[in-house]
Amino acid sequence: MKNLKKLAPLAIASIIVACNNTPSNNADVQVTENMPAESELLFEKGEQVNSPNFTGGTVWLKNLVNADSVNKTAVGSVTFEAGARTRWHSHPAGQIILAIDGAGYYQEDGKEKIVVRKGEVMKCPSDVPHWHGASAHTHFVQVAITGREKGETVWLEEVTDEEYNK
Amino acid sequence: MKNLKKLAPLAIASIIVACNNTPSNNADVQVTENMPAESELLFEKGEQVNSPNFTGGTVWLKNLVNADSVNKTAVGSVTFEAGARTRWHSHPAGQIILAIDGAGYYQEDGKEKIVVRKGEVMKCPSDVPHWHGASAHTHFVQVAITGREKGETVWLEEVTDEEYNK
Repeated sequence: MKNLKKLAPLAIASIIVACNNTPSNNADVQVTENMPAESELLFEKGEQVNSPNFTGGTVWLKNLVNADSVNKTAVGSVTFEAGARTRWHSHPAGQIILAIDGAGYYQEDGKEKIVVRKGEVMKCPSDVPHWHGASAHTHFVQVAITGREKGETVWLEEVTDEEYNK
Repeated sequence: MKNLKKLAPLAIASIIVACNNTPSNNADVQVTENMPAESELLFEKGEQVNSPNFTGGTVWLKNLVNADSVNKTAVGSVTFEAGARTRWHSHPAGQIILAIDGAGYYQEDGKEKIVVRKGEVMKCPSDVPHWHGASAHTHFVQVAITGREKGETVWLEEVTDEEYNK
């Protein structure tokens, strides 16, 4: 990532996750899988997201739990079609991501992109720029668990196709 | 629940969840389903739990994420065989439960028992005594999301068979 430019946090900041764990198998995903029917998903697919913080394809969000004054954790299910990704961004209190279906990519600033598969769980450090999304050939469904006690997501620049495909 | 008696919090307190949402269909579960093979589960089944805070059957726990100094949220996958349940208990910061497989029961003190099914999400208020577990005929797998910033789970008395079957 070059020339980090902070963008104003947007309303949907709450759905974005990132992570720093290393999955057991980092070979890229070569098989194209169709997006499952909604009846096959664990949670509802939710609404299509219209935001400049997502590029490369369509993304859907289903908010599962909102933060409140006692329990400041928000939970949402995010579905990325193949090729769809977040911008670079960071979270002031870190975040947890549960990979629910398909396969995705994840990268932290200064590290290599890793592949995340269904059933893997990632814990994301605070304030570390990163991006994530579906793999190039297969959709990705994640549950994002975000603490709101230290503020909202900080949005940065777009993930280029060069970064995405590297 | 009668004669609330506080029990010392135990080490596995972190895995317990509870909730206050009302599922869409509260009819009881009549169909017996076999526990799925581990390869069919979204997350690993983990280790069998040996604790007086669980009664009525076998329970397994897989810790997915531990709390840290910045992100104080812990996440664990808990599998209950049919009939297995927690004691009555409460959480100082509340908790979130994702129903991942099978069907379970949930009850708050002073309210009726409700049925929780795969794909449902429950948000649990702080400091409210409650219990949960598998339904009488079918296993239940839950992901528990627990904030640790206000302290650990408070364990109370056993759930009687009369309470469980009511």
